Amino acid sequence: MRQNLAGHSIIESITTSTDLIMNHPAILASVRKPLPASLLHALQALLEDRCSIALAVREHHGRDESSYDPMPPEAVVFVQSTEEVAEVLRLCHAHDVPVIPYGAGSSLEGHILALHGGVTIDLSQMNSMIAVHAEDLTATVQAGVTRKQLNTEIRDTGLFFPIDPGADASLGGMAATRASGTNAVRYGTMRENVMALTVVTADGRIIRTGSRAKKSSAGYDLTRVFVGSEGTLGIITEVTVKLYPLPEAISAAVCSFPDNADAVNTVIQTIQMGVPIARVEFLDANGVRAINAHDKLNLPVKPLLLFEFHGTEHGVKEQAELVQEIAAANGAGDFEWATKPEDRSRLWAARHNAYFALLQLRPGSRSISTDCCVPISRLAECISETQIDCENHGITYSIIGHVGDGNFHVLMLVDPDSAEEIAVAESINQRMVTRAIAMDGTCTGEHGVGIHKMGFLIEEHGADAIHMMRLLKHAFDPKNILNPGKIIAWDEAEE
Amino acid sequence: MRQNLAGHSIIESITTSTDLIMNHPAILASVRKPLPASLLHALQALLEDRCSIALAVREHHGRDESSYDPMPPEAVVFVQSTEEVAEVLRLCHAHDVPVIPYGAGSSLEGHILALHGGVTIDLSQMNSMIAVHAEDLTATVQAGVTRKQLNTEIRDTGLFFPIDPGADASLGGMAATRASGTNAVRYGTMRENVMALTVVTADGRIIRTGSRAKKSSAGYDLTRVFVGSEGTLGIITEVTVKLYPLPEAISAAVCSFPDNADAVNTVIQTIQMGVPIARVEFLDANGVRAINAHDKLNLPVKPLLLFEFHGTEHGVKEQAELVQEIAAANGAGDFEWATKPEDRSRLWAARHNAYFALLQLRPGSRSISTDCCVPISRLAECISETQIDCENHGITYSIIGHVGDGNFHVLMLVDPDSAEEIAVAESINQRMVTRAIAMDGTCTGEHGVGIHKMGFLIEEHGADAIHMMRLLKHAFDPKNILNPGKIIAWDEAEE
Repeated sequence: MRQNLAGHSIIESITTSTDLIMNHPAILASVRKPLPASLLHALQALLEDRCSIALAVREHHGRDESSYDPMPPEAVVFVQSTEEVAEVLRLCHAHDVPVIPYGAGSSLEGHILALHGGVTIDLSQMNSMIAVHAEDLTATVQAGVTRKQLNTEIRDTGLFFPIDPGADASLGGMAATRASGTNAVRYGTMRENVMALTVVTADGRIIRTGSRAKKSSAGYDLTRVFVGSEGTLGIITEVTVKLYPLPEAISAAVCSFPDNADAVNTVIQTIQMGVPIARVEFLDANGVRAINAHDKLNLPVKPLLLFEFHGTEHGVKEQAELVQEIAAANGAGDFEWATKPEDRSRLWAARHNAYFALLQLRPGSRSISTDCCVPISRLAECISETQIDCENHGITYSIIGHVGDGNFHVLMLVDPDSAEEIAVAESINQRMVTRAIAMDGTCTGEHGVGIHKMGFLIEEHGADAIHMMRLLKHAFDPKNILNPGKIIAWDEAEE
Repeated sequence: MRQNLAGHSIIESITTSTDLIMNHPAILASVRKPLPASLLHALQALLEDRCSIALAVREHHGRDESSYDPMPPEAVVFVQSTEEVAEVLRLCHAHDVPVIPYGAGSSLEGHILALHGGVTIDLSQMNSMIAVHAEDLTATVQAGVTRKQLNTEIRDTGLFFPIDPGADASLGGMAATRASGTNAVRYGTMRENVMALTVVTADGRIIRTGSRAKKSSAGYDLTRVFVGSEGTLGIITEVTVKLYPLPEAISAAVCSFPDNADAVNTVIQTIQMGVPIARVEFLDANGVRAINAHDKLNLPVKPLLLFEFHGTEHGVKEQAELVQEIAAANGAGDFEWATKPEDRSRLWAARHNAYFALLQLRPGSRSISTDCCVPISRLAECISETQIDCENHGITYSIIGHVGDGNFHVLMLVDPDSAEEIAVAESINQRMVTRAIAMDGTCTGEHGVGIHKMGFLIEEHGADAIHMMRLLKHAFDPKNILNPGKIIAWDEAEE
């Protein structure tokens, strides 16, 4: 039974609808202890008014964009330097108190819930640019710098940072969840685009995990160990990323299809032909209906692909012609081009707003979002079976995705007071993930594990691989103070 | 003092020239014990005549392409399946006996020397294709499949595997050393191109580290933990890699420059402009002289760039025109085009033979090769200072490199009987690596650490990062049986 800050039970029973979401083994296993007074005093002495125990501050930091109710930490500290993070870690380590890193709060799977209380480290004030090496196509930033801020700061260099998960997430958070988004089909994910990290370890050591060399065989790949570790192996305080020259030409287009399969098959064939497309996003008819209403667009209410091409003037033209041929063979309508930057921005803003637009299709609803990724040849089949599953269960849903990577999401709009709807949505999610894993895909393409996907992680990797992950966790965080209860259970017996 | 198989000292003194190479802390710390008879009997029962204790077999497996003298294992087993590897690991684990994986024997830094005796696992008979998913642009192979074999096996699919370290290395070995080579500037290294591995752990568990999904945020990146781990964390038995559509058009050209700096600056500017060049290789005048003699070419004996462009017909033309402009501005001569496939093959064969060609510049010599990688803007400076250092010491040398990545090698031809020459070469290497690290580069771009670069690893990453690497090693291999003595010393005190 979960306890609140005062030690009272905050789940009195598990018979109400919300409990179907909150009744997660990691949440039920959570145990919180009051913060030792000596630790609180030390943190206050170190950070003064940048250490808060105000309820509103704690509640704000105890939730993300997932469906979970807030689970606030006991204190929130607002750090401004790597050295401060190291000192906070040394103090918490000495007191056996959990620490949870917090960037922009935009994670989706319960990553930052303070399951076991402790101290949340808010890195948003660590928002300084450390170095832009335009001549090397790299930038080093503090972890709290957001992707939009980064692109604003480098706008005069002729370079850009392509990773775009939709939300204006922090670079530290994006590294910690191995984020990707719309440009990944061409430019890769945070896995490929982080060159080096500064990380504070559980016991307060400060390490740098790599260099600015484009490649290296110098020992274990600590950078990739921490990318995607969701704060459970160390706290990322600085991030060095790759930048790319702004393409000479960019063009974007939308194109409607008779049904989902036609759109998805167009993408599959485009990828198989090796067209270096920069973005290709899929929205089903419900998704289109939602963004039409939300963003005052007049797109045909049919399955839609949204393309972006990057290259030389001629290269973009070549790519577009090839993709138009493929699309036409799959029954597509005409391409509608967005040639002006403001038209492109409007289209992409609409795409990024799809989540919020969809919520308005059913006022008062909560979205249960899902995330899976399969080998490209299986994508049409995976989406089709998932669509049928949704239709068979009469749920309000939309399928959207970064289909060039084989990655898609189902957003299901449920009545938060309906235990039945929530159960149906979770069962659809369960079957979708099982389907993706059976196709040699993954239970999460980009959202991460948090607490929501912990069970699927075992299904995907098997007990022996999870055992190796656990060895890594135990080695790097022997006191289990780093975002405890996330990704994998501490003991095999807790699974 | 190192001991031979019978327990006798095999380095009676460290005053001879060879000892300057062999006098490595990891070698001096090596201690070898006879194989327990019960283990040998169990291995023979399992593998019959695929378990050898013949001296010639052991000596063949106790050396790589580095300058080190052979350090043979006590036995060599030739495995044919992942299950056999797992059984060998379980046996060696139970007997506390080291295991060393062996692919093609083409590593360069002493990776496969049996420092502490034990059992070498030769994976070359594990050379089956497991699955080619052309529709997903992936292939899964047993670890002993070589890169040339892979490309032969998939020649009818219209796809290719681009990673090309020169040697016909095994995919398992390439993954284990995080190899790259000539195509990495466009297609990345093994870090980016391995999707999943099958790995046998120290205690004989079989895990798969990933899926065939193009991206994933599903927990710790075990794939990247094992890529580059040089057999010290687990034995790679299967590799799933990305494939790429053969480009519609390929063209290659060579171009000579007045001096090294002009050639390197051409590359720097090409990368900074974002030209998606597929290959760009640098050879200094000595390198050109060597391949002219070895491969019967008539290239001008001047610094040379060797380019390859991949794309559509028009795209390749655009790239080539842009690069020609940049080169001309840097004082280049005309581009000589190799348009026919056989001419291209001849050029690339010459490039790949450069190592052996150079050895013939000074018959009887041994090459001490080096490897570093720096941010692209520092490349001209790093090469120039290294060149001056070589000139000042009157050594026979050549600088060649995958310069598009900021990666280059100095090959130094030394008289193996001259302690002085070897000492000079090692001191040049030392200064080159220190220079690269000071430029925020790395001590090895692609060769790996083995034993040769262990000292530099600490210099590059710092003691605290090495501490984290050691935690990982201890967690995954608590008995220190996996290729012991490589990458990092087991105890901090041994460093």
